[in-house]
Amino acid sequence: MSRTEQEQANLDLVLGMFEHVLNPMDSGAVDRFVSPDYIQHSQLAPPGRDALKAFLDMIKAETPEAVHDVKRAFVDGDHVTVHYHVRRHEGDLGWAVIDIFRVQDGLIAEHWDVMQDVVEGGPNPNSVF
Amino acid sequence: MSRTEQEQANLDLVLGMFEHVLNPMDSGAVDRFVSPDYIQHSQLAPPGRDALKAFLDMIKAETPEAVHDVKRAFVDGDHVTVHYHVRRHEGDLGWAVIDIFRVQDGLIAEHWDVMQDVVEGGPNPNSVF
Repeated sequence: MSRTEQEQANLDLVLGMFEHVLNPMDSGAVDRFVSPDYIQHSQLAPPGRDALKAFLDMIKAETPEAVHDVKRAFVDGDHVTVHYHVRRHEGDLGWAVIDIFRVQDGLIAEHWDVMQDVVEGGPNPNSVF
Repeated sequence: MSRTEQEQANLDLVLGMFEHVLNPMDSGAVDRFVSPDYIQHSQLAPPGRDALKAFLDMIKAETPEAVHDVKRAFVDGDHVTVHYHVRRHEGDLGWAVIDIFRVQDGLIAEHWDVMQDVVEGGPNPNSVF
């Protein structure tokens, strides 16, 4: 590893967002981590920071037991990658998700994601994680 | 950016694999880029390097026009992330894919991926890329 102090700060910001926003699905904590000019690329959510808050409120209401289990995370300059497992309820096979975030001026400024159902019985006995 | 020489070599290896293996779907070039002990985590492909070659031969036969269009790529130590767009034929909306590779001793040793259909008409007018 050869992370600069700034890279470590960018990684810590994103992992802090997982701890304080995504895992508790707490829309009230969004402004501490996400830029007012947030650019959303996810196909699931409408654009912008306010829509992100509404999205968090919705998933908290619909799936209050959901967990977002971080498997690995990386940083390169101002971009952070997080690979994690979303399970909506106990026994849920869930989704494998990889997010990419761009950090600017100490806040998350842009976000891309790809998500896929975890399945059982495919051609690969190895874990998707 | 603060990439070390080793990190840049790891990134170049993976982007070289996209250029010489994945885009031409050339199973004959796999051994130059992928370890004999390759650990596959993709849900699509059976484990191991030989299975990867068979998988490339299969997708080349089924979708000879397929393109793998790299949008962004990052490196952190021995891990490389690539975000790209797969289109199987002209007019295909395709898949958004994020791959994570672990490089060891100058070869790709481990691979995780997440893939998702690109859709039209969702709640977000921004591009998924």
